[in-house]
Amino acid sequence: MIYLDNAATTCPKPPAVWEAMEDVIKNKGANPGRSGHRLSVEAGRILWEGREMLYSFIGAEEPEEIILTSNATEALNLAIKGCLKPGDHCIITSMEHNSVARPVYALGTAGVEFDIVEADTEGIIRAEDIKKAIKDNTKLVAVSHGSNLTGSVQPVEEVGKICREAGVYFLVDAAQTLGVLPFNVKKLNADMVAFPGHKGLYGPPGTGGLYLRRGLVLTPLKEGGTGGQSETLEQPGNCPDRYESGTANTVGIAGLRAGVKFVAQLGVHHIEEKEKDLLSLMLSGLKRFDEVEVYGPQDLNKRLPVVAFNIRGRDAAEVGFILDRVYDIAVRTGLHCAPLAHRTMGTLESGAVRASLSYYNTREEVECFLRAIESIIREMT
Amino acid sequence: MIYLDNAATTCPKPPAVWEAMEDVIKNKGANPGRSGHRLSVEAGRILWEGREMLYSFIGAEEPEEIILTSNATEALNLAIKGCLKPGDHCIITSMEHNSVARPVYALGTAGVEFDIVEADTEGIIRAEDIKKAIKDNTKLVAVSHGSNLTGSVQPVEEVGKICREAGVYFLVDAAQTLGVLPFNVKKLNADMVAFPGHKGLYGPPGTGGLYLRRGLVLTPLKEGGTGGQSETLEQPGNCPDRYESGTANTVGIAGLRAGVKFVAQLGVHHIEEKEKDLLSLMLSGLKRFDEVEVYGPQDLNKRLPVVAFNIRGRDAAEVGFILDRVYDIAVRTGLHCAPLAHRTMGTLESGAVRASLSYYNTREEVECFLRAIESIIREMT
Repeated sequence: MIYLDNAATTCPKPPAVWEAMEDVIKNKGANPGRSGHRLSVEAGRILWEGREMLYSFIGAEEPEEIILTSNATEALNLAIKGCLKPGDHCIITSMEHNSVARPVYALGTAGVEFDIVEADTEGIIRAEDIKKAIKDNTKLVAVSHGSNLTGSVQPVEEVGKICREAGVYFLVDAAQTLGVLPFNVKKLNADMVAFPGHKGLYGPPGTGGLYLRRGLVLTPLKEGGTGGQSETLEQPGNCPDRYESGTANTVGIAGLRAGVKFVAQLGVHHIEEKEKDLLSLMLSGLKRFDEVEVYGPQDLNKRLPVVAFNIRGRDAAEVGFILDRVYDIAVRTGLHCAPLAHRTMGTLESGAVRASLSYYNTREEVECFLRAIESIIREMT
Repeated sequence: MIYLDNAATTCPKPPAVWEAMEDVIKNKGANPGRSGHRLSVEAGRILWEGREMLYSFIGAEEPEEIILTSNATEALNLAIKGCLKPGDHCIITSMEHNSVARPVYALGTAGVEFDIVEADTEGIIRAEDIKKAIKDNTKLVAVSHGSNLTGSVQPVEEVGKICREAGVYFLVDAAQTLGVLPFNVKKLNADMVAFPGHKGLYGPPGTGGLYLRRGLVLTPLKEGGTGGQSETLEQPGNCPDRYESGTANTVGIAGLRAGVKFVAQLGVHHIEEKEKDLLSLMLSGLKRFDEVEVYGPQDLNKRLPVVAFNIRGRDAAEVGFILDRVYDIAVRTGLHCAPLAHRTMGTLESGAVRASLSYYNTREEVECFLRAIESIIREMT
């Protein structure tokens, strides 16, 4: 099978990921931070090492700024619900995934105001438009760094500066970009960054995290046992304990650490270069077909290796089905959990086919994909 | 090492657990329910099979009543916060873990009233006391089925009947009992049951779930992408999608399914019998020492294989440290995330040593533990 659904989750994972997980479940299977015995201490070390790896990878100041979550959606919900109160105003963009749009929409019914800044036809917002949308009660600006539909990369550095100057919290949804593009929380002036473990970081599902800038305090999404400060019914104030109640996914976190190590050792620049080469091949190949409409930015520097397209006259789901059944090529079709972005692209009715790349894809696979598309088009005539 | 910290997490896990996990991460690494391709469909099947296994194991009516979570704490937070609104009243017991007590306490600061029903000196509540505490605005009764500190088993069947008659939701925290005692949601008249995957079900960390009786609708803890109904910004209403936003932990859930299968094939009665034999040996052994005070019920039928104790004149943490370093025996010491229960037992200051058993423990291990305790006592004199 040729797997081109890496924006959903990268596949395969580096062998080191499973090896790390196997070691934990077989040899380090205790509950971290709950007991004093050595096996528990060792399990605690797994969490610590995961945090160590992540904080330095994203350029944070200290490991305690990393809150481990079960996925990016949990991180986004914690960030959004943890900082907004009724009466607050929040700004999102028309390129957001439902993991941002739905929590904001839910808060909207509970007295939080929000505005949606519209992207252009390539799916890119203007930082200036964010600035214009900031009001006296604006507390949070949430921007998807790169679109899971069109791959459009937003001018997050500019937005970060604007937010910092305006004294507004800036939340970056890095679901599609961490491990894919160079990333530094300080350069972005980000107060919070949500990320999955199982996409560009090549970790297992069930992992993710939230970078929370030191000093920022959120209302926890969940209260419960934290191992420390057991004597009080009040949730502890210290980070990350405040936000990590319940037994941690040590097995997954060990895998995530191995994934981040894989990315760090290759170097994000190297990964970016390789994926850009594949992306360029895919885009130029698709452009040869008059019947194909590709969405998102033309400029390779403004996009991720995520290509949404339609074949005119063909249903997106049907194209995906043929790619899967006839050509053994896995892509995603449908609405990609991003109705706002589809509305921006004019594809809310039709949906789109999405082919997304990872470091493990090859030029041969992309060429095979292009030949399959060509055959599907030819069959039509 | 002799591992007697199974109430924190069971260790080891059955080999089938990691074999199932390995198969998923190596061969079925796609994102479930997000795409139409076969690898994604296969990943979706993992979730379905996990739900199938769990619903029948607990005697639910249909698989959709099982909401998969990252641990029991998340399930408890979803249940408690999802059903209580300001002005509602809620009843908990003095034996609750912080994963129940802390969310309730947090809601208490937001206008939810609550009462704590006190247990007796053995850590057991009287169902009658729950009945007395029910008020006109009582919406929820939350009871820990079995204590993680003293192993005290509560009369949940009686409480369930009382709640059903009073039209009050009944939430059972089965963190210590699922897989350990026979369990049937209908027999308990439970509306919700929270459980971890990594304790009595022998699954990996990062897994758990909430049984939510059909027809009951909660406010979700998290909104986001659900794979289905992508076109709307409103969180879908259907169960379990409504509560499972974000990428699922397919690897963990495959492991959990294998764990439940292990338990189901052995039979909970058989597991209970074996653990009761070990428990009996441990309790009668500890009783021989005048210096040892054991907490919790005397009657074996009213308790779990979880034994909290102190050696008079010795600090609990010190005893745990010696057991670990000198005898290579892992127990837990401290407050066990259950300050309410410690207050009931009179051990809030001292803490306690806790030895907890699993199916994998042996009589030889228990005897070795008893010899170690004897040596520690002798050294004192």
